[in-house]
Amino acid sequence: MYSYEYLHRFSKNVFLKMGCSEHDSEIIADVFMAAEMRDHASHGMIRIKDYYELGKAGRINVRPDIRIVHESPSTAVVDGDNAVGMVAARKSMEVAIEKAGKAGTGWVATRHSNHFGIAGYYAMMALKHDMIGICLTNANPLVAPTFSISRMMGTNPIAVAIPTFRQPPFVADFATTPVARGKLVVAEKKGEKVPFGLVQDKSGNPSDDPAILRSGGSMLALGGDRIHGSHKGYCLSSIVDIFSAVFSGANFGPFVPPSVAYLPVLEKKVGEGTGHFFGAMRIDAFQPADKFKTKMDEWIETFRSAKPVEGQERVLIPGDPEREAEERIRREGIKLIPSIKTDLIEIARDLGIEFK
Amino acid sequence: MYSYEYLHRFSKNVFLKMGCSEHDSEIIADVFMAAEMRDHASHGMIRIKDYYELGKAGRINVRPDIRIVHESPSTAVVDGDNAVGMVAARKSMEVAIEKAGKAGTGWVATRHSNHFGIAGYYAMMALKHDMIGICLTNANPLVAPTFSISRMMGTNPIAVAIPTFRQPPFVADFATTPVARGKLVVAEKKGEKVPFGLVQDKSGNPSDDPAILRSGGSMLALGGDRIHGSHKGYCLSSIVDIFSAVFSGANFGPFVPPSVAYLPVLEKKVGEGTGHFFGAMRIDAFQPADKFKTKMDEWIETFRSAKPVEGQERVLIPGDPEREAEERIRREGIKLIPSIKTDLIEIARDLGIEFK
Repeated sequence: MYSYEYLHRFSKNVFLKMGCSEHDSEIIADVFMAAEMRDHASHGMIRIKDYYELGKAGRINVRPDIRIVHESPSTAVVDGDNAVGMVAARKSMEVAIEKAGKAGTGWVATRHSNHFGIAGYYAMMALKHDMIGICLTNANPLVAPTFSISRMMGTNPIAVAIPTFRQPPFVADFATTPVARGKLVVAEKKGEKVPFGLVQDKSGNPSDDPAILRSGGSMLALGGDRIHGSHKGYCLSSIVDIFSAVFSGANFGPFVPPSVAYLPVLEKKVGEGTGHFFGAMRIDAFQPADKFKTKMDEWIETFRSAKPVEGQERVLIPGDPEREAEERIRREGIKLIPSIKTDLIEIARDLGIEFK
Repeated sequence: MYSYEYLHRFSKNVFLKMGCSEHDSEIIADVFMAAEMRDHASHGMIRIKDYYELGKAGRINVRPDIRIVHESPSTAVVDGDNAVGMVAARKSMEVAIEKAGKAGTGWVATRHSNHFGIAGYYAMMALKHDMIGICLTNANPLVAPTFSISRMMGTNPIAVAIPTFRQPPFVADFATTPVARGKLVVAEKKGEKVPFGLVQDKSGNPSDDPAILRSGGSMLALGGDRIHGSHKGYCLSSIVDIFSAVFSGANFGPFVPPSVAYLPVLEKKVGEGTGHFFGAMRIDAFQPADKFKTKMDEWIETFRSAKPVEGQERVLIPGDPEREAEERIRREGIKLIPSIKTDLIEIARDLGIEFK
């Protein structure tokens, strides 16, 4: 078991050694740790190696000049200058929050960025300003549209954080696929099958093989198949892609660059890097903040009082599982699987720092 | 078969006779007809009777004073004064578009409204202004959250319309459930079963009975069950509900009033009427409009070129099915099922107008 402080310090040191500034390394470590604490380990320490390799290959910019390149009172386009995604994303969400302070809402599309960790982190930045936070990102293509066998879209997540008064905040943070990619990786490592409705083989046949992506298969959009509404998941994923990439001038759909160094740079580009989209909405641009937050408490209490199915103890509110995981992990510490530990020890040795 | 013009004139006359203004009756007829033309008959002429009965019962206001009650440069809250939903919604989207003209984006939450027909109509209003249009609404409760047997949410749709250049516009308009309510009604009328994954019985068991809602059952959120991501559908539906109702001061979740007169007014109120949410985003607040629209063409052409599953001719773009239906229906005319015809003849007789 590791402590938050130990892994945060280590993560920060890796990025400092890679050439990132003190300020940027702190942000990157914060986002990695937020993923670990919220039990989204697939976006936590496991990703350090990917970034380290991208850095060694000169495929990310550790000293970026992140700039606003276009704006209106409530909008901006940010060029991430090929930064580590967390740095471009954090700056973009700050711009959205600042815009919302003046115009009521702020909306920022970001291009030329990279994988930014968990979307929920940026959405939640809005909460302490009494704003609703929104974060979308596209990602490298693994998902087939309805009726297709081509991998055209990423798992393109949506995160929305909504402030409350006495209740914990409402935080939704979800991929627009039935499960996140990480769940398939875990099942594959354990040698388990997955339920039908998550992936298909290269011909579009239903599959329960979590490793099917290695042989030309693809993930399905939320809904699974047409009769269960996969065209709606496809719509959602498309909207995330268009807001993130067409608004910003990033690569869309099948042209989103890989977030790992062992995959080659794509031949065709239709924009710059990966794209994100951020929103901040000042709640008092709609309702007095106290009134809104009290109403949100009432909303949450109403949904908590929904009758559970027999065998289920309770009905969850978006954000409950992550918050409870965070309480547990803060108490118990963070567990790393052996292969990640090995990776981190190797990186530490390379950089002349310590990890044990 | 009926012509667009005949049904439009009739619909308009019904609302004129009910006491609505010329201006408002025209809008209402436009939205009903948009539903018929886009092959969403469940939101078309079939709903006239519901409105007629609500009017007779004094449960809607045919001479509303629709007002902005709160605003910021990019936002507004509109009080619909218990108007026919189409009238409140159209006015609200006009406000969103006007706000976007100045601030880059405009966001309007509407309370004290009623059922407004198809969400796509309002989202599409933005297109001719070179804006992206967004429309959400809550609806009376039929859907259970994940792990629950309580009907807490409506089929809460999301509509997003995105301008293009040579290609037809991207128009997504979908309920946050696997299928719209109307599909269950049709299956029930035909005496058919539905696939598992759409509804559950009153104890939360899987069901294939489209009439199960009559005996305490509920619809499932997009995803169907937990393993297939129903918690994501639940998140989406919740976000639609909160944006529509908590931002505006309307009724949320289980307290959304029924849109038909044969169901009684609910005992408990947590706000005013039904709630909607509208967004307009000026594309040149992000990118030069021509550049964006050309990129959208490229996005659409890329996705159209995705390889279809064997047996499928092609991969669809959001908006394709409705646009093609519109072309067909404009050519062939509009078909009404006998029971709707009977209803309309009865209403016509009541009002001293003609329908045949």
